[in-house]
Amino acid sequence: MSSKFFAVVAGAGPGTGRACAIRFAKSYPVVLLTRKPESYQDTVAEINNSGGKAIGISADTSDVKSLNAAFEKIAKELPGSKLAAAIYNVGAGFQRKPFLELSAEDFDVAVGGNARGLFNFAQKTLPLLLESVSDSEHPPTLLITGATASVRGSYMFSTMAASMFARRALGQSLAREFGPKGVHVAHAIIDGVIDIPRTSHYNVNNGVEDSKLRADAIAESYWNLHTQHRSAFTQEVDMRPYVEKW
Amino acid sequence: MSSKFFAVVAGAGPGTGRACAIRFAKSYPVVLLTRKPESYQDTVAEINNSGGKAIGISADTSDVKSLNAAFEKIAKELPGSKLAAAIYNVGAGFQRKPFLELSAEDFDVAVGGNARGLFNFAQKTLPLLLESVSDSEHPPTLLITGATASVRGSYMFSTMAASMFARRALGQSLAREFGPKGVHVAHAIIDGVIDIPRTSHYNVNNGVEDSKLRADAIAESYWNLHTQHRSAFTQEVDMRPYVEKW
Amino acid sequence: MSSKFFAVVAGAGPGTGRACAIRFAKSYPVVLLTRKPESYQDTVAEINNSGGKAIGISADTSDVKSLNAAFEKIAKELPGSKLAAAIYNVGAGFQRKPFLELSAEDFDVAVGGNARGLFNFAQKTLPLLLESVSDSEHPPTLLITGATASVRGSYMFSTMAASMFARRALGQSLAREFGPKGVHVAHAIIDGVIDIPRTSHYNVNNGVEDSKLRADAIAESYWNLHTQHRSAFTQEVDMRPYVEKW
Amino acid sequence: MSSKFFAVVAGAGPGTGRACAIRFAKSYPVVLLTRKPESYQDTVAEINNSGGKAIGISADTSDVKSLNAAFEKIAKELPGSKLAAAIYNVGAGFQRKPFLELSAEDFDVAVGGNARGLFNFAQKTLPLLLESVSDSEHPPTLLITGATASVRGSYMFSTMAASMFARRALGQSLAREFGPKGVHVAHAIIDGVIDIPRTSHYNVNNGVEDSKLRADAIAESYWNLHTQHRSAFTQEVDMRPYVEKW
Repeated sequence: MSSKFFAVVAGAGPGTGRACAIRFAKSYPVVLLTRKPESYQDTVAEINNSGGKAIGISADTSDVKSLNAAFEKIAKELPGSKLAAAIYNVGAGFQRKPFLELSAEDFDVAVGGNARGLFNFAQKTLPLLLESVSDSEHPPTLLITGATASVRGSYMFSTMAASMFARRALGQSLAREFGPKGVHVAHAIIDGVIDIPRTSHYNVNNGVEDSKLRADAIAESYWNLHTQHRSAFTQEVDMRPYVEKW
Repeated sequence: MSSKFFAVVAGAGPGTGRACAIRFAKSYPVVLLTRKPESYQDTVAEINNSGGKAIGISADTSDVKSLNAAFEKIAKELPGSKLAAAIYNVGAGFQRKPFLELSAEDFDVAVGGNARGLFNFAQKTLPLLLESVSDSEHPPTLLITGATASVRGSYMFSTMAASMFARRALGQSLAREFGPKGVHVAHAIIDGVIDIPRTSHYNVNNGVEDSKLRADAIAESYWNLHTQHRSAFTQEVDMRPYVEKW
Repeated sequence: MSSKFFAVVAGAGPGTGRACAIRFAKSYPVVLLTRKPESYQDTVAEINNSGGKAIGISADTSDVKSLNAAFEKIAKELPGSKLAAAIYNVGAGFQRKPFLELSAEDFDVAVGGNARGLFNFAQKTLPLLLESVSDSEHPPTLLITGATASVRGSYMFSTMAASMFARRALGQSLAREFGPKGVHVAHAIIDGVIDIPRTSHYNVNNGVEDSKLRADAIAESYWNLHTQHRSAFTQEVDMRPYVEKW
Repeated sequence: MSSKFFAVVAGAGPGTGRACAIRFAKSYPVVLLTRKPESYQDTVAEINNSGGKAIGISADTSDVKSLNAAFEKIAKELPGSKLAAAIYNVGAGFQRKPFLELSAEDFDVAVGGNARGLFNFAQKTLPLLLESVSDSEHPPTLLITGATASVRGSYMFSTMAASMFARRALGQSLAREFGPKGVHVAHAIIDGVIDIPRTSHYNVNNGVEDSKLRADAIAESYWNLHTQHRSAFTQEVDMRPYVEKW
């Protein structure tokens, strides 16, 4: 593995983000961005201890300054390395609440992390991805994690749906603008519960085996999106457990 | 026309908002909310001069305080009157720009007016609409104006699409929560150019007659949504000129 | 009411078809097409007895010859009258069955009635509707009844969904072709159980009042579609009871 | 490569079908079904000559008897082998025509090949795929090729859209029924022109390199769908050239 290209994962806590970091670390040095160091530390150590290269940086994608500082740090830590893949996996402001119990701040937190954070992250990474078009092995890629709330405004999920619909819209618009320039922008609708420690007690689908999404399975599909040929880019894909009702 | 019930239109400038005010004024006193008085003055005068009742209030729906003040004023101006219909028609931050030329502020302005403004407006109006369920002639209604950008993230429309997808999501979620309580929440996708003074020079569809949407035609469909029986509520409807490509 | 224009309803049994016949009979003589006379007789009598004009004709829309014969009969019964509105409301081959218990004939029956029937009906009515563009009061209209299965391939509804997706596709394609010629083609997704004698024992939504769609409410919305101005045509609309889960 | 499992490709002419046969032949013996032998002969020879195993059978999927005969032949040629993957790639009745110039036969041909053919093929393959659930390396898979017309009823594409919408509906319904039983049913929307000899003279996207889909790129994504873990099945994916307008 050379360090000519690297990957960056925003929202690299347990689940999809961690699994993507591990998967993409098979081919690239990876940078993990999370708000708190404790969210990336274990994964960074695991990757570095098993022969890969990982860097963790604390950053809040909803804050332009924080994100700017993170990318300055990346430039120092990986001098001359170019961006091959950027993954936006931040999940913010999860709430399941009656609408009239929500505050405007609840709305702002959800939109800030889930949509404006992607806006900021895309503004930082797309110029870097464009620079990689000419010489990267695979088309440089911006991968965006979506959810059920990306395509369905469910009862009691108003702020989640608003922010995730917005995120999906950004992905579509960016795909139409940057695809023709050689950058692959794809959006994945993760429609189910991911199997992580926090969800271990969730009783989904009567506890049937594999009824929660395995994060490494999601990450494998993300890798497959990254390696698609530019003549056949996927813009949107869904993923859900085989037993999921939908 | 009694004053037992009233209607409120947020975003009541030329076009859909003005036409809705005029249409709903046939049955209810109407309140027009716009940021600047010059946006509502002519319409208010026209309604009052032709036998209807209209009140104009300056308010910024993206600002909770401004909206609170507006509804306090409404309570004083129309004492005892209950809310029959609330129409959210605010359009904010229109931009057609390459993504990398946009700023985070552009994102905030679009989301603030197009999505958070609806969030705020819905929080003010839904409690009032719920109070009308038992005795209004038609199911109390929250009508939301959408656009092409509500369902399509087009090239160069990233902030518009993000904010309008979010708005649509709110509408869906609110319909699922408040429909069963008797409040009708509907979203109209206006897919074309509206025929107003500002668009008079637009050359759409080679200038064929009626190739721009007539605002009074939109308003008639809004009225028809308002008067639907609760056993057959529409949640989403599109409207476009007969010659429109889509 | 003059007889200069008439309306035709295919699939005019109890429910949406019957209600549309009654609603449109307020303005036009109406022709009811059903496979069996007993499906239209009561409605025809009811309309004729209350001052309207109705004609019933037995026809199978999935059979071109049968449909040709029906339109020849219409031309004789209503000489010189032009077509203002055509409503396709045929429901065929309803089945809720495991896929491997279905036969190819089940597929053919569903597609024959739900999609090919519309294909045939549109081929007969669109030339007539085009002739009315220049002098009808409202844009001549082809209205198509859809269902939940028009947009969702549910478990055990494979043949229904296949045939209703196909029907919706036809509606979209015809709207794009005939809209610019002045004919309004609209598709209504009826998402719930309609309140008719056959469904009177269905326990939907715990028997809450108005939890089934009232056919006259649907028909009123169909009429509103018919009378839309051509600058603001609706192509698709949904309708469901206020208490429906969706 | 053992012969314990095989794959079958219906509609195996140049393009996606041929490329899938070649790709899946890296892991399984493959059966190619086409109406005419000349459509499969070259590919069968190519696979057999390069160390794989391929069998070609003439069959018309829209005809149950023809399909039954084909599967009897498969059972004889590959005794004891179980089905790992079935790919439905038949394209029938392509037409770009004004609606009133189409005949009912045009409708029947399109629906027969594009939808009823899948119905028949699924009825033959799903029982076989179910038998493989317990011991195949990857979840047994039914892959369905869609097109732009699967999600959009375009002008002059009425029969194509009707038949491809129906096909997509079948895929959705089957995914919901057979997913929980361990069979992966996925639908791929191929949104663009595929680069095959027949399209070599098409001028798409001004002839920019890679502006037509490479069939081997599509086949690689099909293989990736086949190898997904059952906890994270994709039901629908799109693919289009990076320069495609959509």
